[in-house]
Amino acid sequence: MIVVLTGGTGGAKFVEGLRQVTSVEDLTFIVNTGDDLEWWGLYVSPDLDSITYAMAGLLSRERGWGVKGDTFYCLQAMGELDEPTWFHVGDRDLAIHLVRSRLLAQGKTLTEVTTEICRKLGVQARVLPMSNSRVETRVTTPVGELSFQEYFVQRWYQDPVNSVRFAGASEAEPAPGVIEAIRSAGTVILAPSNPVTSIGPILAVPGIRAALRETPARVAAISPLVGSAAVSGPAGVLMAAQGLPVSIAGLAQAYGDFVDILIADLRDQKAATQLDRPGLRVHCTNIVMKTLENKTKLARTVLALLAGEKSASAISDP
Amino acid sequence: MIVVLTGGTGGAKFVEGLRQVTSVEDLTFIVNTGDDLEWWGLYVSPDLDSITYAMAGLLSRERGWGVKGDTFYCLQAMGELDEPTWFHVGDRDLAIHLVRSRLLAQGKTLTEVTTEICRKLGVQARVLPMSNSRVETRVTTPVGELSFQEYFVQRWYQDPVNSVRFAGASEAEPAPGVIEAIRSAGTVILAPSNPVTSIGPILAVPGIRAALRETPARVAAISPLVGSAAVSGPAGVLMAAQGLPVSIAGLAQAYGDFVDILIADLRDQKAATQLDRPGLRVHCTNIVMKTLENKTKLARTVLALLAGEKSASAISDP
Repeated sequence: MIVVLTGGTGGAKFVEGLRQVTSVEDLTFIVNTGDDLEWWGLYVSPDLDSITYAMAGLLSRERGWGVKGDTFYCLQAMGELDEPTWFHVGDRDLAIHLVRSRLLAQGKTLTEVTTEICRKLGVQARVLPMSNSRVETRVTTPVGELSFQEYFVQRWYQDPVNSVRFAGASEAEPAPGVIEAIRSAGTVILAPSNPVTSIGPILAVPGIRAALRETPARVAAISPLVGSAAVSGPAGVLMAAQGLPVSIAGLAQAYGDFVDILIADLRDQKAATQLDRPGLRVHCTNIVMKTLENKTKLARTVLALLAGEKSASAISDP
Repeated sequence: MIVVLTGGTGGAKFVEGLRQVTSVEDLTFIVNTGDDLEWWGLYVSPDLDSITYAMAGLLSRERGWGVKGDTFYCLQAMGELDEPTWFHVGDRDLAIHLVRSRLLAQGKTLTEVTTEICRKLGVQARVLPMSNSRVETRVTTPVGELSFQEYFVQRWYQDPVNSVRFAGASEAEPAPGVIEAIRSAGTVILAPSNPVTSIGPILAVPGIRAALRETPARVAAISPLVGSAAVSGPAGVLMAAQGLPVSIAGLAQAYGDFVDILIADLRDQKAATQLDRPGLRVHCTNIVMKTLENKTKLARTVLALLAGEKSASAISDP
């Protein structure tokens, strides 16, 4: 069983590769819900959606989020009604939000609703929210504290960031199945997601980090950085705000207590040799996923690497 | 001030004519909400929508409901998710349901929400729900008791009807402004709506029928029948189920205690002469609204007739 911690567009891209090279029944995703928001009165869970759409083959590769070929007529009408439109919801995407919101209003948990949506979309992998409690990523900026979507989508992550917190995390519990999946995993992979706002909320849920430390499975993390910059998005600014070096050294610091292998970009080979962390192996490969071939190759490399680690063969950089 | 009691597609058609020939600020609509339903977890009020869309110039004339030129991509996606799709909601129409549902969830009343939606759509006429309490039209058939939409839309009004009731009506109160509008009206018009399930629920709200009886305004009712058949829809079957003759005699019976003028189809002239109800005048004209010209002409005729009545001039059939 392969357990993947994921969130964001980088995570969804990696998942697209992973589904090409593995048996979907072997995959369990533990997904960030810190970005979830109420939008137009509906409960929207962008990372659960991206992973589910990616696994269903519905993810828009053009946009990296939402449903491929989606239309935006409802959004347009909302704009004409002077309703907010900065968070783009397509007409087909809306169907999922309607279904999820209705099932939640009926008293189902986010885990149950996610399972139901996966069933409806024919997704056979296991998709688990990190928690059924509300954990909200809050970004403190000079203009005030923002929700993640306000910071990221509404304001195009242009604000300087003072700090990030995960409201509700200390009282949250891991969703059913999360701890068990990590403990019984064959391998655990941290997708190339933003370590602060995609993986960070998952690790902030009490018990998950300890489970990652204690699992007998090998844990690999894929870097979302090339050198000192994120492949996309605000990972750099957010890492700096959390006092982390914006480099694979920062990732090593963030994940060092539980990660066995760090998969970094080829351009970080020098940084890798300078990383003085006993017990952490760094493997360099191409982590930039522009094409489906890139995605598939990265997924294959990561799996081969983890399989090799298990059989204790040497890792060689390409 | 012209007060119009309305519901259904006949009502919306008449309203389309009315807006052509009157100053919109002079119009107050008291609208049936007995057809309202929860759909995809949203609160949908078909008659409020039809009147609002008609007044905004957005009503689809092709379908007689919903927004003209609307698309149905979300509906299609809902179908692919095995969600019910028998009640057709367009992508633009959905925006109104989202806005209404969100405002209701915030604790606003249906009256307040309707005012807000009218403002957003630039509708200057006053649109009032009959009540802010939930009154549900329930249709008893051999297959069981159905909601109005189940009977009408889902099952194409093919079931025999034993009876109709308005659940919640006895505990309901007229919405703010309804009684005052009727009392202070210059004229009151009952649109050519189904007397049982469009006008019936309005009259079932305690206080409204009494206000119609007591208002000093002339009250006119437009027949939705030609001979012994409804112009469209199940009015005939429903009238029969309520023990009313399916003819203008049935309308006279249903509305006789408060209506001054009945506007009937030209083909009902003979029936009109046979109607032995002192105090009720019948005027025959073309009530079938196939074109905008038909709609406008009917509205103009009704208004002229009411104005004539007020100045006590004789009514002559054309």
